[in-house]
Amino acid sequence: MDDRPIGIFDSGVGGLTVMREVIEQLPYEDIIYLGDTARIPYGSKSEQTIKKYAQQCSRFLKSKNVKTIVVACNTASSIALEDLKDNFDIPVIGVIEPGARSASKATSNGKIGVIGTTATINSNAYQNKIMEFLHSAEVIGIPCPLFVPIVEEGWEYSQVAELTAEKYLTELTEHQVDSLVLGCTHYPILRYTIKKVVGPNVKLINPAFETAKDLKSLLKEKNLLNEFKGNPKYEYYVSDAPEKLRRIGGNFLKKEIDNLYKIAIDNL
Amino acid sequence: MDDRPIGIFDSGVGGLTVMREVIEQLPYEDIIYLGDTARIPYGSKSEQTIKKYAQQCSRFLKSKNVKTIVVACNTASSIALEDLKDNFDIPVIGVIEPGARSASKATSNGKIGVIGTTATINSNAYQNKIMEFLHSAEVIGIPCPLFVPIVEEGWEYSQVAELTAEKYLTELTEHQVDSLVLGCTHYPILRYTIKKVVGPNVKLINPAFETAKDLKSLLKEKNLLNEFKGNPKYEYYVSDAPEKLRRIGGNFLKKEIDNLYKIAIDNL
Repeated sequence: MDDRPIGIFDSGVGGLTVMREVIEQLPYEDIIYLGDTARIPYGSKSEQTIKKYAQQCSRFLKSKNVKTIVVACNTASSIALEDLKDNFDIPVIGVIEPGARSASKATSNGKIGVIGTTATINSNAYQNKIMEFLHSAEVIGIPCPLFVPIVEEGWEYSQVAELTAEKYLTELTEHQVDSLVLGCTHYPILRYTIKKVVGPNVKLINPAFETAKDLKSLLKEKNLLNEFKGNPKYEYYVSDAPEKLRRIGGNFLKKEIDNLYKIAIDNL
Repeated sequence: MDDRPIGIFDSGVGGLTVMREVIEQLPYEDIIYLGDTARIPYGSKSEQTIKKYAQQCSRFLKSKNVKTIVVACNTASSIALEDLKDNFDIPVIGVIEPGARSASKATSNGKIGVIGTTATINSNAYQNKIMEFLHSAEVIGIPCPLFVPIVEEGWEYSQVAELTAEKYLTELTEHQVDSLVLGCTHYPILRYTIKKVVGPNVKLINPAFETAKDLKSLLKEKNLLNEFKGNPKYEYYVSDAPEKLRRIGGNFLKKEIDNLYKIAIDNL
């Protein structure tokens, strides 16, 4: 039993899809969300800079007395996770490993697709992690740079979204992949459009869902679950542009965003 | 007569559309292009940071003995131009003023559209500058965040591009604008698609073209034109990912990109 909040950080609003899954699976936990919107995107920054930013985000969450840290950002998960585990005395969990493990279990023919931002795909983070779990896997990574702005415009059910998905994903069908990792926090919002294009036989893996599942096991194992079944409190912090989180965040979270604050992160 | 090169900088590859216009209108000038690809986008950074980056880019160009500096980046033009003019002893020219002046001359009904990235539109840089030239102007600014990734994918003639343009630009037709500023360096590549959507009666203003025209007048006035009608030399520098400039830059420049070098910019 531990009633301290769960801390989640991302480089922007996308991590709210992870928060949404955490709320679904751990409905009695308080949550502190931090979006480092002043310094998005992390994907184009150097390793050293990404580690520094991840440290600063984690220090902020720690200052809010969180009991665990969820790194919802794909880039920070692939670059900085070990570093954070070494430097903080609370459990830290990322999104890459849960997503990769689930994909390696879901496939029957060993052909797995991964879609993400150009930075995530070029980093090979998912591809390498999947190969660790399933040596024989054939992993096809496809960067889909239009998907994030489509989601941020709220166009996920538009013809633009569908045509774009066709342009990006037809190759996956040709490669006969039978499972597909949605390797960017924004993509679960496009899942119906993606499903329409890849067809019913391709299993979509949502790392946000898998991460929330792993988080629940972790909290149970460490006796950190909150057993008070009351109304949980959610707080949101951003390093820039709170109005954007409020405007588009609702679409990610399926919930009104109150308790939203802007913070200075550079000096943390 | 001055055979030193012209220097052009941008936060990325987009400024190559400005370079292309400069080559067309000043075909005998050597050009040094710098794309600060390690730190793109500038639009989401603070004013202080943008000024610092613009200074560093200008110092690099100055070290290459350029006779003038063209700030091809919309964000840097709106934030850092005066600062650069104060700090460098060679002429410095930006893209905002030439574009705004041309739009204020082109309109008949005083209704002018401006499209650009979210950062450019929210900065009101074009809108304010147009109002300086034409007090009675009614300026409608529309951010078009999907246009840059569409151009960078090479999808400018696709159905995705056309549908996206319809979604963004129908509002301009409703407002009866008669001229439209392409307020982002990437957008001239989309001009045929944009023209198709807004119709033949809307004049498209390309700030890259207007800037090259102003640059030519400026060089003439200051006796800086190169009068040697030989084969000009072009050099390209980037602070990160040279392969991206090589891959997609040709589409911006309509020319093969040789003489491409990666430089460290942080310490300049």
